[in-house]
Amino acid sequence: MISQNIAILGPGSWGTALSQVLTDNGHHVILYGDSPAQIAEINEQHTNKRFFKDIVLDERIHASTDLKEVLKNADTILFVVPTKATRLVAKQVARVLDHKVHILHASKGLEQGSHERISTILEEEIPAELRGEITVVSGPSHAEETIVRDITLISAASKNQKDAKYAQELLSNDYMRLYTNTDVVGVETAGALKNIIAVGAGALHGLGFGDNAKAAIITRGLAEITRLGVAMGAQPLTYIGLSGVGDLIVTGTSKHSRNWRAGDALGRGEKLADIEANMGMVIEGVSTCKAAYELSQALDIEMPITETIYKVLYEGLEPRKGILGMMRREAKQENEFD
Amino acid sequence: MISQNIAILGPGSWGTALSQVLTDNGHHVILYGDSPAQIAEINEQHTNKRFFKDIVLDERIHASTDLKEVLKNADTILFVVPTKATRLVAKQVARVLDHKVHILHASKGLEQGSHERISTILEEEIPAELRGEITVVSGPSHAEETIVRDITLISAASKNQKDAKYAQELLSNDYMRLYTNTDVVGVETAGALKNIIAVGAGALHGLGFGDNAKAAIITRGLAEITRLGVAMGAQPLTYIGLSGVGDLIVTGTSKHSRNWRAGDALGRGEKLADIEANMGMVIEGVSTCKAAYELSQALDIEMPITETIYKVLYEGLEPRKGILGMMRREAKQENEFD
Repeated sequence: MISQNIAILGPGSWGTALSQVLTDNGHHVILYGDSPAQIAEINEQHTNKRFFKDIVLDERIHASTDLKEVLKNADTILFVVPTKATRLVAKQVARVLDHKVHILHASKGLEQGSHERISTILEEEIPAELRGEITVVSGPSHAEETIVRDITLISAASKNQKDAKYAQELLSNDYMRLYTNTDVVGVETAGALKNIIAVGAGALHGLGFGDNAKAAIITRGLAEITRLGVAMGAQPLTYIGLSGVGDLIVTGTSKHSRNWRAGDALGRGEKLADIEANMGMVIEGVSTCKAAYELSQALDIEMPITETIYKVLYEGLEPRKGILGMMRREAKQENEFD
Repeated sequence: MISQNIAILGPGSWGTALSQVLTDNGHHVILYGDSPAQIAEINEQHTNKRFFKDIVLDERIHASTDLKEVLKNADTILFVVPTKATRLVAKQVARVLDHKVHILHASKGLEQGSHERISTILEEEIPAELRGEITVVSGPSHAEETIVRDITLISAASKNQKDAKYAQELLSNDYMRLYTNTDVVGVETAGALKNIIAVGAGALHGLGFGDNAKAAIITRGLAEITRLGVAMGAQPLTYIGLSGVGDLIVTGTSKHSRNWRAGDALGRGEKLADIEANMGMVIEGVSTCKAAYELSQALDIEMPITETIYKVLYEGLEPRKGILGMMRREAKQENEFD
């Protein structure tokens, strides 16, 4: 592949890790962020210590706070901004962009209120004549592992197979491997909704339950996010892939996951407000749980695990009572996705 | 449900745990085994210390070495014998049984040589007029957790929904929950083949790879066992369920799994013969890998992970070389199951 000019919007942990992957692959990367101190640190010290204490970045990675400058020669824009900032940044891009580009994103979430997926927001805000079909890259990927070039496999999904293949070729190398997919709804909902189940798996651990129970909540959680995703237009088999099962495994069994740790604390009896205050960061699963619960009510989809976690988070339900309530539901058939 | 007489064949860890579940549910259980010392221990000490050091069993659980006695009043026979002994025990049952029963099994494997599933062996050996459709119960279930009444969710699959529902009603209670399914091929192959992937996940850990790589091998492993299962007649969505994803999670992420530990040792450079000698027990994933590899060759199914593990186990391939070889395969689409 001929060397591409890539604008990465969002110098967080995953944006920074992807900037290194793309530089390793011979592309020219500019990271865009709005913190002058952080941008100067990347350009001058070649570090991003807020996210990676001990990593020295490739000197070819440049950063800027000037969006117009960043987009000037871009062949490709990669959005890695938090869900709640996506619409604003997309509006800014639409205002500045003056040529056609490839658009990729690597964010996981649903917009509060509208419940929209990231690619829908980008489609709405950036005119079709300025872009190909949006491609989402998503899967099991601790940034801390990818940045040290440990093996990472993820999905690249776009409505148009050609756009997905472009992302695959752009990002693949001998430690990073992408699998293409055309089910954008499936890949995006899998990435967003898995954080709810991670909270649940953590809560079971905090309550003292064992591995059988944790495997059960992950599996039944996957079943219900599949039900919701299918109602939103996804293919059920997408959830068996890297963005579904794969991401659930790293998030739902790892103490490194913020969502898992929040659940664990809930299970041990801590209050949500205290947990959020202690972490000093947003716990995505908490806001996604609200969006998913509202969607499940609107679409009339049964999501007992999401509903239980919602009631624990927002209505003060005692976690153990919630779990036992789920166990006492009427016995069911597996896999009612259609 | 009216109290049933249940003959459990095989007083191993899972057979013993299920005997306690069924006793908790008000059924009359007799365990059948061929070791007089073990049978006497269960009847007199109410322990089965080879498997559960600190557990005192319910005194209502009886055991016997006399198969005729055990089967005399049985409403239901539950096979929990090792795969390689299943055909022999089924022949003995067929010789002694004189009335119609329900037949369940909870074994995970494929017969060496014939590559047959457990329910096929039971169908061949026990005349149809003596039984309903065979029901398999399978899922994420460390016996050590079920026997202390920790939450456990599994699948019950039978060609006939009525037989699956019977098993569901028989075994369900407030810590054990069964989901019915009619895809016997899917549930049986998922349970058998997951042990191969557990060996692979352990090997990655032994080689020093991280969580991204482990989630990736579990997910891509699930994709290839799904491909093989579908070629054998299974429904792809079964693999997203408790017997597929669920069981893979407990086996593929747990150091308590023999298969995972064998893989870990392989990754650290130990030889298979030494690993088997040190464990003093059969490592199911090792023999299942051979059966799956032979099946994949016969059915022309691409199974790169199984093939790599087969070559590491049986042809002396260096594990790290095998992993890197897999990473360098041509980039693919996800989810080609049909």
